[in-house]
Amino acid sequence: MARRKRLGKILPKKASKFQKKMGKAPGTITYMGRREGGTSVVNILEYNENVLSEHIPGDIDAIVAHKELPEISWIDIVGISDEDFIAKIGKRFGLNPLVLEDIVDTHQRPKIDEYEDYIFGVFKMLYINNEQEIVYEHVAMVLLESCVLVFQEMDDDVFKGVRHRIKNKSGRIRTRGADYLFFALIDAIVDNYFVVLEHLNHKIEELEEVVYDNPTPEIAHEIQMIKKEVLRIRRWIFPVKELVSRLIDTENPLITKDTKVFLRDALDHSLEINESIQIYREMSMSLMEMYMSNMSNKMNEVMKVLTIMASIFIPLTFIAGIYGMNFDHMPELHYENGYYYVWGVMIALFIGMMIYFKRKNWL
Amino acid sequence: MARRKRLGKILPKKASKFQKKMGKAPGTITYMGRREGGTSVVNILEYNENVLSEHIPGDIDAIVAHKELPEISWIDIVGISDEDFIAKIGKRFGLNPLVLEDIVDTHQRPKIDEYEDYIFGVFKMLYINNEQEIVYEHVAMVLLESCVLVFQEMDDDVFKGVRHRIKNKSGRIRTRGADYLFFALIDAIVDNYFVVLEHLNHKIEELEEVVYDNPTPEIAHEIQMIKKEVLRIRRWIFPVKELVSRLIDTENPLITKDTKVFLRDALDHSLEINESIQIYREMSMSLMEMYMSNMSNKMNEVMKVLTIMASIFIPLTFIAGIYGMNFDHMPELHYENGYYYVWGVMIALFIGMMIYFKRKNWL
Amino acid sequence: MARRKRLGKILPKKASKFQKKMGKAPGTITYMGRREGGTSVVNILEYNENVLSEHIPGDIDAIVAHKELPEISWIDIVGISDEDFIAKIGKRFGLNPLVLEDIVDTHQRPKIDEYEDYIFGVFKMLYINNEQEIVYEHVAMVLLESCVLVFQEMDDDVFKGVRHRIKNKSGRIRTRGADYLFFALIDAIVDNYFVVLEHLNHKIEELEEVVYDNPTPEIAHEIQMIKKEVLRIRRWIFPVKELVSRLIDTENPLITKDTKVFLRDALDHSLEINESIQIYREMSMSLMEMYMSNMSNKMNEVMKVLTIMASIFIPLTFIAGIYGMNFDHMPELHYENGYYYVWGVMIALFIGMMIYFKRKNWL
Amino acid sequence: MARRKRLGKILPKKASKFQKKMGKAPGTITYMGRREGGTSVVNILEYNENVLSEHIPGDIDAIVAHKELPEISWIDIVGISDEDFIAKIGKRFGLNPLVLEDIVDTHQRPKIDEYEDYIFGVFKMLYINNEQEIVYEHVAMVLLESCVLVFQEMDDDVFKGVRHRIKNKSGRIRTRGADYLFFALIDAIVDNYFVVLEHLNHKIEELEEVVYDNPTPEIAHEIQMIKKEVLRIRRWIFPVKELVSRLIDTENPLITKDTKVFLRDALDHSLEINESIQIYREMSMSLMEMYMSNMSNKMNEVMKVLTIMASIFIPLTFIAGIYGMNFDHMPELHYENGYYYVWGVMIALFIGMMIYFKRKNWL
Amino acid sequence: MARRKRLGKILPKKASKFQKKMGKAPGTITYMGRREGGTSVVNILEYNENVLSEHIPGDIDAIVAHKELPEISWIDIVGISDEDFIAKIGKRFGLNPLVLEDIVDTHQRPKIDEYEDYIFGVFKMLYINNEQEIVYEHVAMVLLESCVLVFQEMDDDVFKGVRHRIKNKSGRIRTRGADYLFFALIDAIVDNYFVVLEHLNHKIEELEEVVYDNPTPEIAHEIQMIKKEVLRIRRWIFPVKELVSRLIDTENPLITKDTKVFLRDALDHSLEINESIQIYREMSMSLMEMYMSNMSNKMNEVMKVLTIMASIFIPLTFIAGIYGMNFDHMPELHYENGYYYVWGVMIALFIGMMIYFKRKNWL
Repeated sequence: MARRKRLGKILPKKASKFQKKMGKAPGTITYMGRREGGTSVVNILEYNENVLSEHIPGDIDAIVAHKELPEISWIDIVGISDEDFIAKIGKRFGLNPLVLEDIVDTHQRPKIDEYEDYIFGVFKMLYINNEQEIVYEHVAMVLLESCVLVFQEMDDDVFKGVRHRIKNKSGRIRTRGADYLFFALIDAIVDNYFVVLEHLNHKIEELEEVVYDNPTPEIAHEIQMIKKEVLRIRRWIFPVKELVSRLIDTENPLITKDTKVFLRDALDHSLEINESIQIYREMSMSLMEMYMSNMSNKMNEVMKVLTIMASIFIPLTFIAGIYGMNFDHMPELHYENGYYYVWGVMIALFIGMMIYFKRKNWL
Repeated sequence: MARRKRLGKILPKKASKFQKKMGKAPGTITYMGRREGGTSVVNILEYNENVLSEHIPGDIDAIVAHKELPEISWIDIVGISDEDFIAKIGKRFGLNPLVLEDIVDTHQRPKIDEYEDYIFGVFKMLYINNEQEIVYEHVAMVLLESCVLVFQEMDDDVFKGVRHRIKNKSGRIRTRGADYLFFALIDAIVDNYFVVLEHLNHKIEELEEVVYDNPTPEIAHEIQMIKKEVLRIRRWIFPVKELVSRLIDTENPLITKDTKVFLRDALDHSLEINESIQIYREMSMSLMEMYMSNMSNKMNEVMKVLTIMASIFIPLTFIAGIYGMNFDHMPELHYENGYYYVWGVMIALFIGMMIYFKRKNWL
Repeated sequence: MARRKRLGKILPKKASKFQKKMGKAPGTITYMGRREGGTSVVNILEYNENVLSEHIPGDIDAIVAHKELPEISWIDIVGISDEDFIAKIGKRFGLNPLVLEDIVDTHQRPKIDEYEDYIFGVFKMLYINNEQEIVYEHVAMVLLESCVLVFQEMDDDVFKGVRHRIKNKSGRIRTRGADYLFFALIDAIVDNYFVVLEHLNHKIEELEEVVYDNPTPEIAHEIQMIKKEVLRIRRWIFPVKELVSRLIDTENPLITKDTKVFLRDALDHSLEINESIQIYREMSMSLMEMYMSNMSNKMNEVMKVLTIMASIFIPLTFIAGIYGMNFDHMPELHYENGYYYVWGVMIALFIGMMIYFKRKNWL
Repeated sequence: MARRKRLGKILPKKASKFQKKMGKAPGTITYMGRREGGTSVVNILEYNENVLSEHIPGDIDAIVAHKELPEISWIDIVGISDEDFIAKIGKRFGLNPLVLEDIVDTHQRPKIDEYEDYIFGVFKMLYINNEQEIVYEHVAMVLLESCVLVFQEMDDDVFKGVRHRIKNKSGRIRTRGADYLFFALIDAIVDNYFVVLEHLNHKIEELEEVVYDNPTPEIAHEIQMIKKEVLRIRRWIFPVKELVSRLIDTENPLITKDTKVFLRDALDHSLEINESIQIYREMSMSLMEMYMSNMSNKMNEVMKVLTIMASIFIPLTFIAGIYGMNFDHMPELHYENGYYYVWGVMIALFIGMMIYFKRKNWL
Repeated sequence: MARRKRLGKILPKKASKFQKKMGKAPGTITYMGRREGGTSVVNILEYNENVLSEHIPGDIDAIVAHKELPEISWIDIVGISDEDFIAKIGKRFGLNPLVLEDIVDTHQRPKIDEYEDYIFGVFKMLYINNEQEIVYEHVAMVLLESCVLVFQEMDDDVFKGVRHRIKNKSGRIRTRGADYLFFALIDAIVDNYFVVLEHLNHKIEELEEVVYDNPTPEIAHEIQMIKKEVLRIRRWIFPVKELVSRLIDTENPLITKDTKVFLRDALDHSLEINESIQIYREMSMSLMEMYMSNMSNKMNEVMKVLTIMASIFIPLTFIAGIYGMNFDHMPELHYENGYYYVWGVMIALFIGMMIYFKRKNWL
């Protein structure tokens, strides 16, 4: 019931997705997400090795004003449903309309596009929310010369670690350029994939236990849900490997050689993640197999009980039926110990059957 | 019944397909579609940034006359079963006979062929008709210097959005060349794939619900139909990715650098579509698995009922059978409370069995 | 029975295949087919734009004599079991012994080999014979400067169309060189693959109907046969794509640029064929799945009938058994309406069971 | 039983394999095969176009002495378990220790290694022995300037044909260099793969027959054995294709251009073999599927018999039970024709059930 | 039970894995293994062709002091949970922080990273412990100019052979450089994979026996465990092939040409291992299939027993029931030999049924 409801809620949204966009010109900024109506909140963090300031600008012009400063600035825009606002930012930073379209298109697959003055990237943040569900959040990032623009749907905790390191001067982040910040954000996203995969692993191992002990149809359904979840995660995570390796290979001066060493590390993690997903996929398929084999096992057990009961008592009932006949001439009926003889035969038969089934290993 | 009929209608058409063409020389123009007999309707839309005119030319010469104009012209030919007419157009625009053959061959797989003066493309338009069926329509397009020729089987609504944008000067289409129009049409086709895939997704999710609740053989059949549909869609959609990327890589001056940025966007969408198809394929395979597991589940349930009923009542019937025997000497029959004792034994047995089955979790 | 016999006939032939050849030097001409003993029939068709002559040469020298003429000659050799004859032809045309070996090796997989003065190709002609079986015929072709040699096992109808076009001057074949003839023959072979695939499609769709209505074990066997057929066809057809694309890429002057445009068309068709085979493969696998699911469905139905009958009548029989006991003291037996009460209980039970099964959706 | 024993015999051998080698330095010559203790037998065949001599050398020095001769020499060493002997030969011919290690390592996968003065190759000879089992024999070959060294485990018959051709001057082998001999030996190995595959094909087709007629568990086991055999064969045969193509591409002067034409032929055969293995793999998987479907078919049949018998006779027994009750007041019992009426009802019920099952197509 | 406990122990560890690291800067040294708290034990082995010394240095400075010596030194650090200690070593040898991070990250996938002055590699050592379980141990190695640093979690026996060869001057290890030592260690790791795979092979073959004889649900579970084990092994072993081939292709002067010949040998082994894993994977999948087929076989057998018993005795009981009815007028009851006639009919029926089942091959 609950399931049906949940699906019911999601589907109409999805259905409206493409009708919204259909027929519009490419480059039209159309928000495709589910959290419409909210206004964007902008947060600017500016830092270099010595200085650090954080503030929430009053209006767009305030944002751009800050861009002139020599420090690295991390401009975080939370809430992307206000298409006009995004358009304004785009204009000020000189972003291509196609970039703006992708910023608000929450169904955009992960990608890296290089332009002359900036590098544009779209990723999916994955994290586990309080209801223990996997949340997929669209995040777009633009690397400019001394500035990183981040567009998110919701206030996040995936980037919390990076923010913390900047504020506490921990690690080397304060001594490096905007490209290192760009890397650090990607790295934070990728690192969080591990948490999600671990969550998945946990779930699969739990199901493994249950499948073995008690294979109910609900379990089969849950296994299918896991398989679907793995498919969906794979879809969003899989391209990341290629994107990071493209950043490593780029000749764009925005990415320095120093940062590429770190990107190589992120590439490593992406590879590991892709392998894990592959393994989880195979494990979830094994789960279904296991489920089917346990099902047919249960069936075997049921059939054995039936067969044993029927095979023993149907012949005995037949014997009782014989001596329940009303023929005038049935000599056995008049034997003094006929009744006991019959009992003897029945018990012998019973024991014989038991031995037979024992031998067949059915008991 | 209905199904059988539908197949019956399609098959003969298909059977005639290749016999029609067999033995003819390559380059022979042979219409391969199902809507024979109709005459072609030509619609010409001419525009530049300032001017816009639309008209239906009287004859072939009128079409070519218009080609001389400095504006971009979109020549839309609906209805391709008139082979002579196509041959005439081909001659006027200087198209290769092989191109003409492909224009009317509705079974041609998607392709891009570059010639010296023009680029020729074949695509499949997919859309959902009013009966909620997926329609596959063959469309051929020729990009010339300031002109795009479009050959379709039926009057469409897939290109409606493009036409609308031209007429309303929305987006940048009016300010760009024929290659942008060419791109815009491809983009419209690709965008519509999303609608079709969404329709498919809907159907799969509906089936998922039903499989879980009530796995009938009809459902199995529908799942197989979905699988087949996915196969067919994949066949027509899959090559598009490569075609678009070939357009991006081409050095043909007909495609400008500006348009290539937009084509990259279309490539992105094609990639996304291919991934989706892959996922739908796996989902439809999971559906079948789910169906099978629910089937064997139902079977398990049926067998449990049988086993419980038989295991309880066959032994009880045996006991009743014992005391229905007609032996002269059966002391129990003459016990005062013999009848009640037997009832006691029977009830005890019944309760014992119930506990046994309860323990086995069969109840 | 019939099946067993058919296999029995084929197997010994096959078994003798490699023993025949084993231990011989590479380049030894050993006929590997099944139609031994026949003599070769040679047919020569010579033509250019204006002239056309056809004749059956008396002996080998007559064949070569004709080679000197300025016209294009199509030398068709039907029957390749006469190894000496093939050797003589080979000598006259200067063919490599390995080429001659491949000409008579009917198990040779499709291939294109380029030599300095000629291009050698092996293909499989597939067609449907009058018994509606798929026939695989080995055909070897040699493209020389103004001559195409064709070696076939049987008189064919696959090349009939080409012959017809030459004789009727239809299409452009009469105005072009030997390479165009070479292409036209390959094209005819590839075109015929479509007919065979269509035949297969037909068979699969027929089986689909039957599987749904009446899944007998014979059907399962037929599905497996189809799967095997698809495997076999794929084996012979799959390499063609690569061969044609190698002809397109070759720098051999025997293939002119003009003909390459047409070869590109043939490549297109090969791609389409390969895709179709892939789809038929998946469809035949789906068929088997469908079969299995319908089988277990039938089983479910059988079990339901058994369970319903047993669950209703076993308890009722038990009740009848109770009152068939012969205890001296069974008060119910002496109730005036005892018999009717029992009937009442039985009918109530019956109705209760029916409602239960109805609720479970088993009726 | 037999099976268990056979496995018992093989496993300890295998288990000792790697412990033997573990911890030794790379390049240590450690015989890994199963035929220990035998001494090596050396046979030298020397020939050119005119001369031919064969002899068994007394000691190692005799072997090397012969190497000086201008003729081609084929030095055949049968028995490779004498590690010292192999080491001595290696020293005389200047072979790398790693080569010697591979010569005696019977588990080495097929490979081609090029060194400055020689080319080293390892292959698996496959043949059918008298017990109709597939035998895998390790063979190592070294091509030197005018000499081919062959190391085998057992006296073979795979190379018999080559030896025969040399002795009888048949084919071109006597007129060519050592590289042609090298090719001829590889060709002999590859040709024998066809015999083995044919054997496999035979077995699969036999099983196909049996699966259809009588699917016993033994058959399932045999199918699995076939699948395993195909896996094993694939493992040893699959790399050959690549090795031969590497020989074709090598720039090593030891392989002449003339011989490469023949190697291309061997490559063709390797491709064909790989395709066949692929097909046998799919066929063996189909076999298992077929087996499963026939199994569930048998089950269906069993269940139908049970259901028909039970559904007919349980209700009839119930009716008989009714009139076996001992109520004082059962009017029907006293009807004059009551007994016949009951028979009538029973027969009607019987016929009704038969019609019902007939309609369901269960009879 | 035991299983559940084991999982219980592992899971919390795993869960803590990524939370530990999350949010820290890349390059932070965080031990990720399970053996925390132990101190590192350093063992230094220094050797050249003539000299050999082994000692356990008192402190870090002692380690570096030794680095100045002209001999090859193998510095073995066992125990990597002391992050400060690792940091100090890193500083002294000038290692990049990312390298240090990977040294202690026991979940790092195998990799080779080349830096200017050193080559860094991570591998997984696999071995069978005394409980016959497969142990995965993280090992990191750094190749410097005349020194190899090895970081392990536990004191090992995988490298025992190498140590032994150095001490006994066996093989060529004492005469070669640090790169040969580096290779020898990798080779030892790879060689040990064979032992693990053999162990796996053993287990699979044992299961094969059991599946055939007695397919219990525990067996199904064990098969799934094997499948999972194969997946896990594949994950750690699979990348090794690529890493070794990268070492072969590197232009880094740290790896000499001589050593590359040996690396090629190690590459060969990696290829063989990957093929074996692939085969074990397919074998374990076959096992499951076999299990399922034997299960349904057992079911068939059970059903046959039930069907035979029921089909024989239900009709006989019906006959007995007939003559147990109490109708006043039942002429057969009064026949002198009625009782014997009925027995005759029953026996005839019994024999008939037996013949029927015999014919159906069910007995």
